[in-house]
Amino acid sequence: MISTLPPGAPSLPADAASLRAMIRAGRYQGHTSGLAKGFVQANVVILTRDWAYDFLQFCALNSKACPVLDVSDPGDPRLRNLGSAIDVRSDVPRYRVYRDGQLAAETEDINALWRDDFVAFALGCSFTFEQALQDAQIPLRHIALGRNVAMYRTSIDNRPAGRLSGKLVVSMRPMTPGNAVRAVEITSHYPAAHGAPIHLGDPALIGIEAIDAPDYGDAVEIDAGEIPVFWACGVTPQAVVAEARPEICITHAPGCMLVTDIHHSQLG
Amino acid sequence: MISTLPPGAPSLPADAASLRAMIRAGRYQGHTSGLAKGFVQANVVILTRDWAYDFLQFCALNSKACPVLDVSDPGDPRLRNLGSAIDVRSDVPRYRVYRDGQLAAETEDINALWRDDFVAFALGCSFTFEQALQDAQIPLRHIALGRNVAMYRTSIDNRPAGRLSGKLVVSMRPMTPGNAVRAVEITSHYPAAHGAPIHLGDPALIGIEAIDAPDYGDAVEIDAGEIPVFWACGVTPQAVVAEARPEICITHAPGCMLVTDIHHSQLG
Repeated sequence: MISTLPPGAPSLPADAASLRAMIRAGRYQGHTSGLAKGFVQANVVILTRDWAYDFLQFCALNSKACPVLDVSDPGDPRLRNLGSAIDVRSDVPRYRVYRDGQLAAETEDINALWRDDFVAFALGCSFTFEQALQDAQIPLRHIALGRNVAMYRTSIDNRPAGRLSGKLVVSMRPMTPGNAVRAVEITSHYPAAHGAPIHLGDPALIGIEAIDAPDYGDAVEIDAGEIPVFWACGVTPQAVVAEARPEICITHAPGCMLVTDIHHSQLG
Repeated sequence: MISTLPPGAPSLPADAASLRAMIRAGRYQGHTSGLAKGFVQANVVILTRDWAYDFLQFCALNSKACPVLDVSDPGDPRLRNLGSAIDVRSDVPRYRVYRDGQLAAETEDINALWRDDFVAFALGCSFTFEQALQDAQIPLRHIALGRNVAMYRTSIDNRPAGRLSGKLVVSMRPMTPGNAVRAVEITSHYPAAHGAPIHLGDPALIGIEAIDAPDYGDAVEIDAGEIPVFWACGVTPQAVVAEARPEICITHAPGCMLVTDIHHSQLG
């Protein structure tokens, strides 16, 4: 996810509800990293009711990669537990539409696609713990460099659920060992945002052969005296769903998250 | 849940797999508190596939009361993530069968009742954190007295999911303020076993009017200098399901839990 606003970006409201209103009105379609600071942002996955069962089971069995923040009732576009007036058909800056597992379209509004059997999922996102790490003065290189975080497909099997199975995807942040220890402590307090790391040190132990060639996002250097620290990543459910090829699946576009009315401190 | 073995109880194996084999063979139908020490025990709820969707959504939205440890595939009696050879039709010491929300039978084996559309859920249980509290030398009065923990229906609404809604049920343990602080620290590390308390102090603030008259379990004294500490309780999903009156629902009998092959230290 891109973590800096493009040059010349408009001045944007600092509170979540105003920012969402602007997004709903079609006046902002960009990345949300760093916006509405303090408010939880969420990954969005929309599936038909039939696939939603498998997905609910998958999330329950793989909660580090898929921490569920909210689930809509079938056909209901509201996410009632994340704000009083969230409409998941219009409140995400940009959506990706997958048909049979293939990216078919990118759009700013999915009102025309909405169906009575759609179920919307909001999943916790690493922006929450990255904010907490930065607040603790732990530097994050990809953010300093304005890059997307480096993500890797591992050899770790997710627990299968119905038609959904596949490998865990992780994000990697290089840190000094001292900061790695503090990062474990801090992120363990955010189970709703991937929680504690799933690994640190030797990438080969989790099946990553080329740390300088991430499967998603951008590479960053690991300096002498640093170790890579790996967290379960929200790309996992998207990759698993794409592999299963449902007729239709809609997600947020990378970095263009749903901004909720929940404050980071309310997660837990 | 009763926390002492009845006098004259047989000597029971200390490892989970041997204890389960004995239970499966019909040679033990009692309470499991304190048995197979170190191994996670689980609440069991079995529903039809149709109700399982609502229940999965309810658990996702109310994870403190309903921490999901495993979900079977429809019709599959195995709980593959909790042990290699768990058969949920025979491995619980005693089951309760509810029809239309009413207790209809208690039995030691549900092979005859099993259906192709049954889904079994295993949910985390307070035995896990009670063990951690005792290991930290925090006394638990109900255990010292050989009583069931005191449980109360609160005024706190669960997040509704489909046909399932209702109030949160909590368990209460009296502690010194110092031990309450340590109990918060310790139990916050067990999100898969109800996690940190949801309240401490004045029971009226969460709608409990008579602390000496619990809605479930047994009352215990709160001594001078102690405060009551409240945790989300696994009775919540059972109460919510009973209110919704599904055609059939099968659970473990109180205190007669599923003993898994997972060690407490693997939860988290």
